[in-house]
Amino acid sequence: MKIIRPVLLLDEKKCRDNIRRMAVKARDSCVSFRPHFKTHQSAEIGEWFRQEGIEKITVSSVAMAEYFANSGWRDILIAFPVNILEAEGISRLAQKTDLGLLFESEETVRFMDANLTSDTAAWIKIDTGYQRTGISWDNRAQISSTVEKIKASSWLKFKGFIAHSGHTYQAQNTAEIIRIYNDTLEKLLQLKKQFSHPGFSPLISVGDTPSCSAVNDFKGADEIRPGNFVFCDVMQFELGSSNINEIAVALACPVVSVHADRKEFVIYGGAIHLSKEFLTYSGGKRYYGRVVKLLKEGWTEPLPGTFVKSLSQEHGVIRTTRDLMAEIRIGDVIGILPVHSCLTAHQMNNYFTLDGKFIGMMEKN
Amino acid sequence: MKIIRPVLLLDEKKCRDNIRRMAVKARDSCVSFRPHFKTHQSAEIGEWFRQEGIEKITVSSVAMAEYFANSGWRDILIAFPVNILEAEGISRLAQKTDLGLLFESEETVRFMDANLTSDTAAWIKIDTGYQRTGISWDNRAQISSTVEKIKASSWLKFKGFIAHSGHTYQAQNTAEIIRIYNDTLEKLLQLKKQFSHPGFSPLISVGDTPSCSAVNDFKGADEIRPGNFVFCDVMQFELGSSNINEIAVALACPVVSVHADRKEFVIYGGAIHLSKEFLTYSGGKRYYGRVVKLLKEGWTEPLPGTFVKSLSQEHGVIRTTRDLMAEIRIGDVIGILPVHSCLTAHQMNNYFTLDGKFIGMMEKN
Repeated sequence: MKIIRPVLLLDEKKCRDNIRRMAVKARDSCVSFRPHFKTHQSAEIGEWFRQEGIEKITVSSVAMAEYFANSGWRDILIAFPVNILEAEGISRLAQKTDLGLLFESEETVRFMDANLTSDTAAWIKIDTGYQRTGISWDNRAQISSTVEKIKASSWLKFKGFIAHSGHTYQAQNTAEIIRIYNDTLEKLLQLKKQFSHPGFSPLISVGDTPSCSAVNDFKGADEIRPGNFVFCDVMQFELGSSNINEIAVALACPVVSVHADRKEFVIYGGAIHLSKEFLTYSGGKRYYGRVVKLLKEGWTEPLPGTFVKSLSQEHGVIRTTRDLMAEIRIGDVIGILPVHSCLTAHQMNNYFTLDGKFIGMMEKN
Repeated sequence: MKIIRPVLLLDEKKCRDNIRRMAVKARDSCVSFRPHFKTHQSAEIGEWFRQEGIEKITVSSVAMAEYFANSGWRDILIAFPVNILEAEGISRLAQKTDLGLLFESEETVRFMDANLTSDTAAWIKIDTGYQRTGISWDNRAQISSTVEKIKASSWLKFKGFIAHSGHTYQAQNTAEIIRIYNDTLEKLLQLKKQFSHPGFSPLISVGDTPSCSAVNDFKGADEIRPGNFVFCDVMQFELGSSNINEIAVALACPVVSVHADRKEFVIYGGAIHLSKEFLTYSGGKRYYGRVVKLLKEGWTEPLPGTFVKSLSQEHGVIRTTRDLMAEIRIGDVIGILPVHSCLTAHQMNNYFTLDGKFIGMMEKN
């Protein structure tokens, strides 16, 4: 494949290995595996999951649910607070799939029950400490009344409690990630116990890639929903959630400008390709990606002392070492491991495998 | 128009006023106005410029040049270091348009001259202090040899010197922006003088929105190329480059989750809509947009004490005041003024005017 502008390369083998590893881990723990498809947003990559026996998926929007329903997925959870303004589309989807929705208020339960026309799985979103969405795990009154409202509804079938411990992304090390995971699980298990009765036990669904990577045994949970693990990225690597060789995507970028005097070169590859997600290294300096050399069959490990230092709309400025600088020429194509692969993939809109096969994604807007 | 998911609203009147104001300013200064179309990327918005007498445009990629060439623009400058890997597409474009290219190395001049088949305008990119791309303004040896190489080429016609003073975005106040502009102009005027000879005087092209907003008289320059001014955004407002009422785009977002206890609510509207560009307010806290109420004919000024505090892929968390919190309901639609309108527009892929008219953009990838 001749690369002439930014292209998101996908190492199919690494990606399939990432999928298989998580699928095996879930099976070994006897939990259901409902991967989050917001990271790849691709029907074709979805098939790779199906080949590992996956039958349930998570998505983050109604549009994404429609896209995957159209490519044959039946059991779909929209892991985003119900947007009541999309009730019509949700109702249509519920008719043709086993749809799951997230609730955190009685008013939304009431509204959706009045607007649905078929059975729909209802999960209660629990906030176990991330403080983004959900009812706080210790607000038993609100949880109770929401459960009752769901049980009294015509179309909603209460499934259980769901949490996303996004605060694992702030953890300093793997031990802290595991501590957050255990804390989340413990809080949800208390709820499970409280709301169980003969003949019914609410399910527990957890899952973020840092937790699902760090934890080996998911005993106690009923379902895991990691998403990013399918590609991983520099953020997961820095968190200790992935090996550098498990990162399955790299943005291939032409070199367009060379400034040896300040050990910098500029690539065609900017914020509209990588996103402005950043990490920091020594001294708090921001970087927007690690740099690799592209090989015939993939790419190298990150080049030492070399970072994407800044991004404009289409430009990326790379800071490197004297030695590497001497090798770089205008017209070279270099690889960037993204800081956040979900955003990079979303922006790039498609992938090319290492042997040049085009892989599409859902259409945007 | 019924808004049910994130939609980028465009206030056509504000936008046309922004275009007209800059066009008048350029005319009054007797400089050529070559607006950068990377901000809006829309053939239809391009027509609004044409109605103000604009005939020359700036773009940031070969694909964007092709898109605007197909919608009837003839004089197009690609303000990005020539990507020699796209030589074939550039050559095709040069055949059907009055194309301008940016050079900063002799090897690129040589390569392109060997690959072009028609006359093409050649500008030398000068680095006047931003340190992204370009030959340093004081590296007279390299500037000279590049000029000579262009003059000796078959297809490249030397036009002049071009600079982008992106460091205006780091300025603390308008006086500093004006100082940076004057410094850039002074450096380019030295080059103009040095490389003028009887019968030829190199042109000077400058332009970034902060400079072009702060400066009233562009005397000395031959051309200005601002882009962001067409929409403005919170970043320009904070820089003092635009009035808050000149911001012409707002992302309309459904409210999906309300947390009155911590004075926060969550919108359907995240990093894939707004981008992760941020600014900071007191105490160095980051924010990703200002919040407005949507009105029938536009939107209010930013709500006091109310900020987009964090963004996930599809979620935006808004921090607000007790008073506003009391008014917010699930299912409301609220407006976000983006921190960086170029990135928000790019990600949203299209616009809707206040009366619901769809406005398309160039296709991505």
